[in-house]
Amino acid sequence: MKDIPNPEDLTREDVTALILSARRRSKRSWEGIAEAIGMSPVWTHSCAMGMNAMPLGKAQALVALLDLPEAAVEILTESPTKIWTQAVPTDPCIYRFYEVVGVYGPTLKALIHEKFGDGIMSAIDFDMEVNRIPHPKGDRVEVKMSGKYLSFNAW
Amino acid sequence: MKDIPNPEDLTREDVTALILSARRRSKRSWEGIAEAIGMSPVWTHSCAMGMNAMPLGKAQALVALLDLPEAAVEILTESPTKIWTQAVPTDPCIYRFYEVVGVYGPTLKALIHEKFGDGIMSAIDFDMEVNRIPHPKGDRVEVKMSGKYLSFNAW
Amino acid sequence: MKDIPNPEDLTREDVTALILSARRRSKRSWEGIAEAIGMSPVWTHSCAMGMNAMPLGKAQALVALLDLPEAAVEILTESPTKIWTQAVPTDPCIYRFYEVVGVYGPTLKALIHEKFGDGIMSAIDFDMEVNRIPHPKGDRVEVKMSGKYLSFNAW
Amino acid sequence: MKDIPNPEDLTREDVTALILSARRRSKRSWEGIAEAIGMSPVWTHSCAMGMNAMPLGKAQALVALLDLPEAAVEILTESPTKIWTQAVPTDPCIYRFYEVVGVYGPTLKALIHEKFGDGIMSAIDFDMEVNRIPHPKGDRVEVKMSGKYLSFNAW
Amino acid sequence: MKDIPNPEDLTREDVTALILSARRRSKRSWEGIAEAIGMSPVWTHSCAMGMNAMPLGKAQALVALLDLPEAAVEILTESPTKIWTQAVPTDPCIYRFYEVVGVYGPTLKALIHEKFGDGIMSAIDFDMEVNRIPHPKGDRVEVKMSGKYLSFNAW
Amino acid sequence: MKDIPNPEDLTREDVTALILSARRRSKRSWEGIAEAIGMSPVWTHSCAMGMNAMPLGKAQALVALLDLPEAAVEILTESPTKIWTQAVPTDPCIYRFYEVVGVYGPTLKALIHEKFGDGIMSAIDFDMEVNRIPHPKGDRVEVKMSGKYLSFNAW
Amino acid sequence: MKDIPNPEDLTREDVTALILSARRRSKRSWEGIAEAIGMSPVWTHSCAMGMNAMPLGKAQALVALLDLPEAAVEILTESPTKIWTQAVPTDPCIYRFYEVVGVYGPTLKALIHEKFGDGIMSAIDFDMEVNRIPHPKGDRVEVKMSGKYLSFNAW
Amino acid sequence: MKDIPNPEDLTREDVTALILSARRRSKRSWEGIAEAIGMSPVWTHSCAMGMNAMPLGKAQALVALLDLPEAAVEILTESPTKIWTQAVPTDPCIYRFYEVVGVYGPTLKALIHEKFGDGIMSAIDFDMEVNRIPHPKGDRVEVKMSGKYLSFNAW
Amino acid sequence: MKDIPNPEDLTREDVTALILSARRRSKRSWEGIAEAIGMSPVWTHSCAMGMNAMPLGKAQALVALLDLPEAAVEILTESPTKIWTQAVPTDPCIYRFYEVVGVYGPTLKALIHEKFGDGIMSAIDFDMEVNRIPHPKGDRVEVKMSGKYLSFNAW
Amino acid sequence: MKDIPNPEDLTREDVTALILSARRRSKRSWEGIAEAIGMSPVWTHSCAMGMNAMPLGKAQALVALLDLPEAAVEILTESPTKIWTQAVPTDPCIYRFYEVVGVYGPTLKALIHEKFGDGIMSAIDFDMEVNRIPHPKGDRVEVKMSGKYLSFNAW
Repeated sequence: MKDIPNPEDLTREDVTALILSARRRSKRSWEGIAEAIGMSPVWTHSCAMGMNAMPLGKAQALVALLDLPEAAVEILTESPTKIWTQAVPTDPCIYRFYEVVGVYGPTLKALIHEKFGDGIMSAIDFDMEVNRIPHPKGDRVEVKMSGKYLSFNAW
Repeated sequence: MKDIPNPEDLTREDVTALILSARRRSKRSWEGIAEAIGMSPVWTHSCAMGMNAMPLGKAQALVALLDLPEAAVEILTESPTKIWTQAVPTDPCIYRFYEVVGVYGPTLKALIHEKFGDGIMSAIDFDMEVNRIPHPKGDRVEVKMSGKYLSFNAW
Repeated sequence: MKDIPNPEDLTREDVTALILSARRRSKRSWEGIAEAIGMSPVWTHSCAMGMNAMPLGKAQALVALLDLPEAAVEILTESPTKIWTQAVPTDPCIYRFYEVVGVYGPTLKALIHEKFGDGIMSAIDFDMEVNRIPHPKGDRVEVKMSGKYLSFNAW
Repeated sequence: MKDIPNPEDLTREDVTALILSARRRSKRSWEGIAEAIGMSPVWTHSCAMGMNAMPLGKAQALVALLDLPEAAVEILTESPTKIWTQAVPTDPCIYRFYEVVGVYGPTLKALIHEKFGDGIMSAIDFDMEVNRIPHPKGDRVEVKMSGKYLSFNAW
Repeated sequence: MKDIPNPEDLTREDVTALILSARRRSKRSWEGIAEAIGMSPVWTHSCAMGMNAMPLGKAQALVALLDLPEAAVEILTESPTKIWTQAVPTDPCIYRFYEVVGVYGPTLKALIHEKFGDGIMSAIDFDMEVNRIPHPKGDRVEVKMSGKYLSFNAW
Repeated sequence: MKDIPNPEDLTREDVTALILSARRRSKRSWEGIAEAIGMSPVWTHSCAMGMNAMPLGKAQALVALLDLPEAAVEILTESPTKIWTQAVPTDPCIYRFYEVVGVYGPTLKALIHEKFGDGIMSAIDFDMEVNRIPHPKGDRVEVKMSGKYLSFNAW
Repeated sequence: MKDIPNPEDLTREDVTALILSARRRSKRSWEGIAEAIGMSPVWTHSCAMGMNAMPLGKAQALVALLDLPEAAVEILTESPTKIWTQAVPTDPCIYRFYEVVGVYGPTLKALIHEKFGDGIMSAIDFDMEVNRIPHPKGDRVEVKMSGKYLSFNAW
Repeated sequence: MKDIPNPEDLTREDVTALILSARRRSKRSWEGIAEAIGMSPVWTHSCAMGMNAMPLGKAQALVALLDLPEAAVEILTESPTKIWTQAVPTDPCIYRFYEVVGVYGPTLKALIHEKFGDGIMSAIDFDMEVNRIPHPKGDRVEVKMSGKYLSFNAW
Repeated sequence: MKDIPNPEDLTREDVTALILSARRRSKRSWEGIAEAIGMSPVWTHSCAMGMNAMPLGKAQALVALLDLPEAAVEILTESPTKIWTQAVPTDPCIYRFYEVVGVYGPTLKALIHEKFGDGIMSAIDFDMEVNRIPHPKGDRVEVKMSGKYLSFNAW
Repeated sequence: MKDIPNPEDLTREDVTALILSARRRSKRSWEGIAEAIGMSPVWTHSCAMGMNAMPLGKAQALVALLDLPEAAVEILTESPTKIWTQAVPTDPCIYRFYEVVGVYGPTLKALIHEKFGDGIMSAIDFDMEVNRIPHPKGDRVEVKMSGKYLSFNAW
């Protein structure tokens, strides 16, 4: 494990590592961290992973909560370059979502067009939640995505 | 457009083409078809696309509703080989879902592990719905997935 | 060249072929066709290629202008599945745009973030034009893209 | 973050890192830096990223402005090897431009041929600007590319 | 070989390296280690490789057996991100299994559908063993996989 | 569906299609066909798919059983060129086996080396069976592979 | 071999096939054809392959020389979409040129920059010839490329 | 920039770095270096890049000229493993040569076969030069390749 | 199976199909065919596959032997474009050779350099034979390749 | 070049580097080393590269001969994971073998089936030699592979 650099030399990878390490030490859950800064767990975790930028107030709250160096605030508020690591993810937990998009992609497209017209669900003006739904034959994972409908332009 | 073959020589691609053509002629929506056979629109469309198999009764109902040849019943009930056409889908409407899985994949994994333990959301014991949610700044596409939680085995 | 099918069996590929053939026979330019239906050349050509859907009135105007079969109207108004043919385009004219996006991608990202904040240029609520700009050292191709700014969500 | 090496051992990656760091410390925008050296923001940022070479005078001006080591001048004026990091960029802000090239590539080609003849837009004798266009339904990102038309040779 | 870090900074890669090194020093076989903690060799080795998570008791037993640092217990119990290193494995011993799946994949699918219905063998609720079967013409490798049958949902 | 060609012009794809069609008409299962010719279901299905060659007597038995044209005997006994259709199979039922090989590949390798020495499990001198194992929490799919151990040569 | 279509339905592939067939019947060499229309062999062959467009007069001369249908003139003068069939060409004769570009690419770049400045050799304003050079140890293939130098823009 | 190692531990990458650095300090051009050792610029640069091996005398001359450590002589004379960094090069200067091979590959093949018979141009018994050709409309880059013709064997 | 075309419209694929069909009807082995025309089995089969060109006399002998249409002579003597169907061959018999090249590639290179100097084995001035070597523990396949040594050029 | 680690921390990469370095210092050839330990040059070099495991006695002999640290014996006797670095090798010397397998793969398959039946040449029970064959028109590289014939199983 690499050393913690001087605060002014922090990279985004450093900030992610510091958050993961602080969370482990503090025994906090992602849900607990999200609640403490008043945001959702999905969004909060994705900011920690460097996949979303935080508004200033939320970055400050997170830095205070986890006792991170002040310099982390600036990093957390910058627009990240979102890089995914693999075309086909190998982790079974992530792959199943990829399989869902592959199998049901044309269906999602057909029903969006039927309900809305010629357009798409935005992945930018977007939010998502993950819930545990009790079920007698085994609890279920519920994932609820919500994105603004965007209509194709004609000009 | 290729000719309709003899009923006994129908392939799954023929059945998909016959359904799309019958739907266009009958001016039915996917929601209407799904309601008529008592199933959900997502599942009904995915069966029509050859991405899911129908129980016998549902296949018979669909064949009757759309006036398809009798031989289509057997095709609709067989287990399909599910082939997706591209590693990275180019259609913008489908790509956005791929982007969501790429950006939020590690987040989905982290929250499933936090809420359930070491396991995954099944993509087999799975259902999904697409809804239009009215919103003052522009209506939103809601996609709700539900899959049984499966725990990794230790042996 | 394949035969023109019965009107009710037209596919989108048939419609594209019929438009290209009618345009060649009628000696019309894309600019002329676009002007006749009151839309831009970029959008009009992309609809003909099956990369955008037309509103009903525009589809009817195009069908009348080029004397296409009536059944083409329905095809032209359906949401197309947009499939691009190659990861790295080999045609030199198209490749140069790909090179521009590769070389200047991070620059476009940095300047959009600097001018607007954490978000993107929409490729859906989008329009584009191509112009010929006279220049003493050789005329220049000007491509002007315009897309709505979309801000990433925090939730 | 790695140490700043001796000036005579600077690599291009070092120079990029020094510029990014100096910009952050000085709270300058890319537009401000570009204006100070009398060039455009697109070109200035792409030189900083190692995607274009600077004429000597501009390199000296940038080094003076940001207080970089003298050895950076030579690096900034050398012809860079332009390497892009991914066939399909995953960052949503960059991907949208890739999608535009994919969807409208054949259209750009057809209109260039119609307006100019058999040739291409140069990506070498080329410039580009990014503008924010106010709009009542939400401001728009305008990207304006200009490249010299090059005609294919017959010999 | 890199240095052993402070216990609190252990990564999963460190733990794998420590296990491999302790195993080599102690001259233990994987079968012996598995027996000592009361689990199967396949599962035990895959946990050591970071491909499965251990229940707390088993992680403690392994740490005690191999005299690993206490901090390894937490790492061994966390849900790993399972990353495989190559699309087509080049090692001949691993490639042969890939060849088996390629050649017999459609056969496995046909027979599972024939024996069970429309569904799959789970790779999550799954176990496997490797045995040496004496044979007069040369001993044989037997690999026995067992996974719960999961039926596709209709909804 | 294409026409049945003259017997002397049969290709392997024709023979596979004829077998699938004869099986559907005769309502036979793969297990039933395999039993009738005195071979295993896995091997029998793989020969029908063109993934294995049949000895003359078995090919004659299959042709008689399913009333195939005589010319099919020669095709069934020729060494097939085994082509798999995808690097990463998309069908969920086949993909799960691919996932197993990816996750447990290094484990299979380690245990084979531990039990046998430096070598591999042959995929040529190989057989496999699929069984349904009753289980109170849901029946299980058992796949049993057996391949001759081959030792690497030193020369 | 497919039938020759009606002249008005000719595609570019048809024209290429007609040229190859006329050349074989007439026993002409590419050098002879090129000389007859007053152009170079490289350019003439590349137009026949659909990789370059012909000016009107040259297209008419070729059509007359080889007795092609009149409709071929229009096809030969249209800007082709240049598609190459493989990322890594397998034909040994073509591969060797690919190897030369791979091995000497950085060298070509370094010497162009040294002799000209920061820019490239145009592949558009470009010509090439192939010559046979007698040599006592075996004749040599000489390939001479010539492209206009294009300087990168600063703006 | 990494430290210069002890002479006896030099790698080929070290030698390339030492040459580039010595060349920069001495303000020599590649043409000047090549002339000083009595070889061509293309070959000399490719040896410096580790893409060709030098005869002993030439390696000694280069080491003396640039004041490199003696140990570099042995490295420069060893047969290098020639690794190119990308299937499709992204640098525009190198890409244009790749485009030339793609567009004109079949033409080069046809003309070589016409002039020589069934064979190839060797990329081993091969040399190349780059020249600047003055031209009133802009100077041109000339690349002249020469490779021994090799005839396919019949046996 | 497609119809045999008119002799003057034969393609190379037709000729390959005619040879395979004539060989099956005549019950000849590849060794027998090769002996009858006085060439080796490897070269003869590769010509039949369209991977090598035949001298005129050998093509005439093969056409006479197998009673092929006269037009096949011209096709058999033309330089073929050698296209291999897959980056990684899936057929186990072909894959094993690919594995040999992967595992022993650096070794072949090292020993060729040690025995000959800086150069390669030609794949053009090349021949190969396949032999069956009796062995008490099971007969062995011997493959003997012979290619002219080509030395890298220095210029 | 990295430092030699403590003997007990040697990796396989360290051992390969130590052998290459000892060989250079001792001016030994691979043939000489192979002879000294009583094995073939191909096998000896492939063990040094980490592509084969050595029996204990041979590993001890090699360690003594080259004065390697004792800990290298254990590494040399472990089963290596054989990883090849590229799908298509770029080094010309290695590529030519890949080309041979591509061009002649189906021929090798056809002749093996003709001489042996339905099976393959083993790449495991395998040996190979490289010889220099004097020839008046230029010496030739002879590569002789020998692998046990393995017959496909029927069960």
